[in-house]
Amino acid sequence: VEKMKRFGRLTCRKIWKVGKEDKRRVIHSLKVGISLSLVSLLYLMEPLFKGIGENAIWAVMTVVVVLEFTTGATLYKGLNRGLGTLLAGLLAFLIERIANESDHIFHAAFIGTAVFLVGAVTTYMRFFSHIKKNYDYGVVIFLLTFNLITVSSYRVDSVLKIAHERFYTIAIGCGICLLMSLFIFPIWSGEDLHLSTVAKFDGLAKSIEVCINEYFSDGNINQQEEKVKKYSMEMEDPIYKGYKDVLDSKSSDETLALYASWEPRYLRSCSWQQYVKLGTVLRHFGYTIVALHGCLQTEIKTPQSVRVLFKDPCNRLAREVTKTLKELSDSIRNRRKYCSEIPSNHVHEALQDLIDALKSQPRLFLSTNSNTNILLALATLATRQKSGKDFLVSLPSVNNDDPARLGLSHVLKEGDKKILRPTLSKNGITSLEFLEALPFAAFASLLVEIVARLDLVIEQVVELGRVAQFKEYSHDDVVI
Amino acid sequence: VEKMKRFGRLTCRKIWKVGKEDKRRVIHSLKVGISLSLVSLLYLMEPLFKGIGENAIWAVMTVVVVLEFTTGATLYKGLNRGLGTLLAGLLAFLIERIANESDHIFHAAFIGTAVFLVGAVTTYMRFFSHIKKNYDYGVVIFLLTFNLITVSSYRVDSVLKIAHERFYTIAIGCGICLLMSLFIFPIWSGEDLHLSTVAKFDGLAKSIEVCINEYFSDGNINQQEEKVKKYSMEMEDPIYKGYKDVLDSKSSDETLALYASWEPRYLRSCSWQQYVKLGTVLRHFGYTIVALHGCLQTEIKTPQSVRVLFKDPCNRLAREVTKTLKELSDSIRNRRKYCSEIPSNHVHEALQDLIDALKSQPRLFLSTNSNTNILLALATLATRQKSGKDFLVSLPSVNNDDPARLGLSHVLKEGDKKILRPTLSKNGITSLEFLEALPFAAFASLLVEIVARLDLVIEQVVELGRVAQFKEYSHDDVVI
Repeated sequence: VEKMKRFGRLTCRKIWKVGKEDKRRVIHSLKVGISLSLVSLLYLMEPLFKGIGENAIWAVMTVVVVLEFTTGATLYKGLNRGLGTLLAGLLAFLIERIANESDHIFHAAFIGTAVFLVGAVTTYMRFFSHIKKNYDYGVVIFLLTFNLITVSSYRVDSVLKIAHERFYTIAIGCGICLLMSLFIFPIWSGEDLHLSTVAKFDGLAKSIEVCINEYFSDGNINQQEEKVKKYSMEMEDPIYKGYKDVLDSKSSDETLALYASWEPRYLRSCSWQQYVKLGTVLRHFGYTIVALHGCLQTEIKTPQSVRVLFKDPCNRLAREVTKTLKELSDSIRNRRKYCSEIPSNHVHEALQDLIDALKSQPRLFLSTNSNTNILLALATLATRQKSGKDFLVSLPSVNNDDPARLGLSHVLKEGDKKILRPTLSKNGITSLEFLEALPFAAFASLLVEIVARLDLVIEQVVELGRVAQFKEYSHDDVVI
Repeated sequence: VEKMKRFGRLTCRKIWKVGKEDKRRVIHSLKVGISLSLVSLLYLMEPLFKGIGENAIWAVMTVVVVLEFTTGATLYKGLNRGLGTLLAGLLAFLIERIANESDHIFHAAFIGTAVFLVGAVTTYMRFFSHIKKNYDYGVVIFLLTFNLITVSSYRVDSVLKIAHERFYTIAIGCGICLLMSLFIFPIWSGEDLHLSTVAKFDGLAKSIEVCINEYFSDGNINQQEEKVKKYSMEMEDPIYKGYKDVLDSKSSDETLALYASWEPRYLRSCSWQQYVKLGTVLRHFGYTIVALHGCLQTEIKTPQSVRVLFKDPCNRLAREVTKTLKELSDSIRNRRKYCSEIPSNHVHEALQDLIDALKSQPRLFLSTNSNTNILLALATLATRQKSGKDFLVSLPSVNNDDPARLGLSHVLKEGDKKILRPTLSKNGITSLEFLEALPFAAFASLLVEIVARLDLVIEQVVELGRVAQFKEYSHDDVVI
């Protein structure tokens, strides 16, 4: 008895949890119940039943099958079902016409052949990727309806009447479904896709934030190691949680975009493919964070002393990146165009600061000069990655008179030996410190890579703003 | 007319292509056609029709909906449909019993309420992830059947007879589907999952191979750059093609594993979750190759001279990695346990060779000694990543007397300053060459990372061999 009670309590809690996670689930369940009751009235109420007859049962069936969670999915299924039924009815009528003029046995053989041919051809058509993607359900319904009508035409005389009635009742069923999903607490796939994209940005920002914090946290190293191990066992690491949804978003994104493209509310925008594209770029951005996370799990050997020295500039860079990500998510959330000149978008300045900081640290500048070079080289790589775009030109807000910056561009453009050689030749390089600083260099290189990929993300967000005709950026919005 | 002709030719070619890509599609289409013709006989042939009656139409419907491409999917749908119908029939019968004892209006109200309640509760149940995953289709069919029987019970007296007939005809339909999918050219989801896993290994091996070849190819650098650009536009890059299926494999893997778990042929093994796990590890392996690919797109600045020097050891390491991947794919393909002592599995020796080669290159040893250190440090990282496992102990075939190896382990274990310091202090380090060698260091570091992740993949393959009870490794098999 005690066991039963516990089991009951667990079940109750689970039922509660599913509803609490997303309240729309409860609403949707009630909607299905109401629609079914409504459609049952066709059968239960005398006057309605007299008008429609036995075939009212098809309306019940349609509601069960068509009414889906989101409006887009319901429209997709409803319209596919309607179209499939209509076409199948027409084809069946045609075949019936031909077959009717022959005798009984030939009639049966003809129907058998038609069923075989239509079945095989239709099934084959389902393998075409375009049809599979947009009309799969319609094709199944076509095949179903065609077979039902053709086969039963052999025993029943009034095929046309069957087809008619079936079509009417299905239309009634679809009508109730559309009414329910369009006007009573509608749940839009487009909205879901929009919000999931915003959530992706927030998750990535969170991941980077936690990553940096853990990297520079002062805690006992062994403790950290154990924490990491524990996390990887339970898959509950906040960093992992932040990016895992991004990595596996492909199929859900595509499904939502497909359904969203059927929703009338958003028909004009046609921006769903852009959301899918943005998702792809975000996934590639996510791969870099996976690498950064990997860096965190192996970086145990970077001594505290080295980490402390770079804590501030790294923190600043990461803060700027997360800030930019949050700005991007805000601009999408509020459906306004992202403006790359927003005052707080100082990522590249922060990157520059990190490089400056490395130079201005006398101890490390002396002992691990090569480390700075690593960063310079990485900056070169990052710039080249954008292939064709000028790193400096694209950043009008950066002060070009900054000597360090000029020095950098000098190195980048000519690989000038004069600047670097003298400084190096007078420094004795201590290999051990260099060895110790290396894991940090790997970490920093990933930060630079992240900045480079962030630019690609920004590009796609701007494109999204253009395609989806978001409203123009205005300064008042920033306050909100 | 010319345009029509061209369109016709294009369509024909597309139809041909879809069939050629996978011949089983044609077979499946024919199977559907035959099944439908067979099931139509129930209706068309006089004696059969007399036995079953009008309800034969449900058998046609079942065949259309249940007969899927793979046996697993058909079984999943067929069994779900059978179970759903049975349970719905029982519940409907119970409710009918209660309702029948009341008057007409109360009867209608009772049915309406029951339809509402069952509809809402069932729909809510579909949001539970476990039910969603394994029984979604069954729940829909349950709701459908329940409504059909309950609602029509209001007008028809013999509900039990309806339920009976419906169940029989659905059983006939399911039976034909199962017969067709189990015994006539069966297409197994498990086989698909197995082969797609093998293909993933081959794709990854191909990616690494092409990556290394392009990196060390002597061609004009500008030409390469343009090729890369062209590739990224058309998404037809062989490297990209190799790993893209791996990255997005999550949902298809899980679907195939779900269907495969219904297939009787493989029921005993229960290894499908291990395939999914292996897929996850392979995806993480793939992320590293994405990074390696990124390295290729930005490495334009590594001078030919540096690359040529490291060509052989890098090639060897990559060759060993691809060889191991191919061995893994072979062992899975032939369903035999992977034996990590296969003579050709010399990845870690190749890694050691790369480090030795760096040391033995006098010019580079002198000028870019730090580069060697990068690799040493990376090797340290790689070893630590395996947290707890001893790098050297796990490689019984490596000759421990090899002095270079001992030197490495020395550095790894004690971070010995004595070995490294003297060499460095007597070398004048030319910063520019170091800067030039850096992109190569990034490339090499990823190769080391790949070796580290390869170990995780091997671990999962060995686990798969254990869980799926593959046959033992024997030396004779290698020849095959």
